[in-house]
Amino acid sequence: MSRFWSERVRELEPYVPGEQPKIDGLIKLNTNESPFPPSPRVRDVLTDGAIDKLRLYPDPNSSALKQTIADYYGLKPEQTFVGNGSDEVLAFAFMAFFQQPRPLLYPDITYSFYPVYCQLFDIDYEMLPLADDLSINLADYRRENGGIIFPNPNAPTGRALPLSDIEALLKENTDSVVLIDEAYVDFGAESAAQLVDRYPNLLVTQTLSKSRSLAGLRLGFALGSAELIEGLERVKNSFNSYPVDRLAEAAAIVAIEDDDYFRQCRDQVIATREWTEARLQELGFQTVPSAANFVFARVPEGEDAAELSRQLRDARIIVRYFNKPRLSEYLRISIGSDTEMQALITALKAILS
Amino acid sequence: MSRFWSERVRELEPYVPGEQPKIDGLIKLNTNESPFPPSPRVRDVLTDGAIDKLRLYPDPNSSALKQTIADYYGLKPEQTFVGNGSDEVLAFAFMAFFQQPRPLLYPDITYSFYPVYCQLFDIDYEMLPLADDLSINLADYRRENGGIIFPNPNAPTGRALPLSDIEALLKENTDSVVLIDEAYVDFGAESAAQLVDRYPNLLVTQTLSKSRSLAGLRLGFALGSAELIEGLERVKNSFNSYPVDRLAEAAAIVAIEDDDYFRQCRDQVIATREWTEARLQELGFQTVPSAANFVFARVPEGEDAAELSRQLRDARIIVRYFNKPRLSEYLRISIGSDTEMQALITALKAILS
Repeated sequence: MSRFWSERVRELEPYVPGEQPKIDGLIKLNTNESPFPPSPRVRDVLTDGAIDKLRLYPDPNSSALKQTIADYYGLKPEQTFVGNGSDEVLAFAFMAFFQQPRPLLYPDITYSFYPVYCQLFDIDYEMLPLADDLSINLADYRRENGGIIFPNPNAPTGRALPLSDIEALLKENTDSVVLIDEAYVDFGAESAAQLVDRYPNLLVTQTLSKSRSLAGLRLGFALGSAELIEGLERVKNSFNSYPVDRLAEAAAIVAIEDDDYFRQCRDQVIATREWTEARLQELGFQTVPSAANFVFARVPEGEDAAELSRQLRDARIIVRYFNKPRLSEYLRISIGSDTEMQALITALKAILS
Repeated sequence: MSRFWSERVRELEPYVPGEQPKIDGLIKLNTNESPFPPSPRVRDVLTDGAIDKLRLYPDPNSSALKQTIADYYGLKPEQTFVGNGSDEVLAFAFMAFFQQPRPLLYPDITYSFYPVYCQLFDIDYEMLPLADDLSINLADYRRENGGIIFPNPNAPTGRALPLSDIEALLKENTDSVVLIDEAYVDFGAESAAQLVDRYPNLLVTQTLSKSRSLAGLRLGFALGSAELIEGLERVKNSFNSYPVDRLAEAAAIVAIEDDDYFRQCRDQVIATREWTEARLQELGFQTVPSAANFVFARVPEGEDAAELSRQLRDARIIVRYFNKPRLSEYLRISIGSDTEMQALITALKAILS
């Protein structure tokens, strides 16, 4: 605590990201990274010429990347926004749309950055409880609000809602922004991107961190009506003119264009997830049906999830444990390579036997 | 304007950065970029192995880069903060320190992002007029305040204050944060970094965009007491866990370590600036003494600065013109290569004759 801090900053409880250990040789299944390198085309664009041009600022509008994203989703560039990771895009969206007289609505179990943004930007919110099976009940969201946000699939549960449910919500909720956070959508859910042309209050965010193996380059984007995108641009241009650097823009373009590689990696993650779910069930875990690149698994009857995560760590495998009500009997396990998941199952067998 | 925007966002007047034209072959002297590529060592760190590792998140704390910066300035890593360009670092600082009951003080002629941050974060401010010679009079700042910020050297004037003046201010102003924005310090001013150990309310920001030729990679940093840095970390960790990507961190480290290359580029910019100032004076311009990588020059008696900048543009040379009171008779001209500055002088001779 310092007397020089603003009052708001004294009260903040910052977000705690998953550990990024500096030890080599660990099997890292704690932050939902891809087990595959990015598209090989990324190497082709990070040339000596591109490095020499780093002396120049990037295009503040990231026009080339916006065009690529617009083409990919069948939208116009003015329906796209890009930022330094989808966390930055979310932060801008909270400022642009959710500072309202009525409360923002989101699930009680969800991405734990949402309450932090609410604190930082002084946004009133209501958390609506998930059902017993950890699904989101959208009927609960039919009430007065200053905005609605949830991930689809949700995190850390991995459960997805069908697009028809999201469209039904949009048909009724027309006076505030509905933000669908699609960080994990590529691994098994339907994107609401196709609804953007029809619902002016729909904002969809996505990231290149997971399904395009670019967590280390920080690239997120939003899709929405031109008026919502303009709101995001106004905040971005009042905060940082150039959040996306030259190399990140160039790499993101080829990563999106290389759709074959994207599909190949995604299909492999899904196949490995299904294998992992089956093995975990054989060991007595109850898995939540996952549409993401992780599995949320309740530990076998009589086991302690915190203790299990410590024992896995002793075996040099890191998974994510949340010491929170309703989550404390679960582990969130990212889907790594086949070899890594085999090592996980072998380690769990040894620990549980 | 959209009914979905927050009230604050409706009222914003975003910052307008200097144009980044997409036409090749222009001589670009409008955004204070370096005429030199970044250190050749940057090529050595952007390897195929580093690209493959982009599947993993960066170190959220950028510890290796902080250590490099700390070593360079003789400070501890906990006295350093890094962000996505110094604009992001400034935005965090405005949130962390300047949301106060008393107004923030800054010069009436200065970096035009400051009033934008004040709008975005609802910060009360007072602008104190520069003297007739466009210098900052620090005696004016000895009044009640919730913070003080100015660039040293100032922009767009290029004028620097001696370190002794800044220290005198720090000795009297002990109850609020004094932020010295040193984006241009390497081209001729003394850094306040050496005062950080003695004044807990001093924050210094710098950037790798100018003197280290990395504008395209977005890397800024702050130096200050551990308690100020902790305030910045609290805001950053409530906004975006990983603002500095893996390639930016790796490139920044070698760019700082390659001190010989840095000195060589800086010395060349200073020599070219001196040559340019002399030639402009011969043409009837009045130049403000510059400690930066640009010259702020009053156009010759009877000439119109806006018209002159348009004529330069017709000659494929872009400089910066500010259509604002007290600035409208000046051009801000970035220092490019010798060849570029010779072309500028040749074009000006032709236009003025």
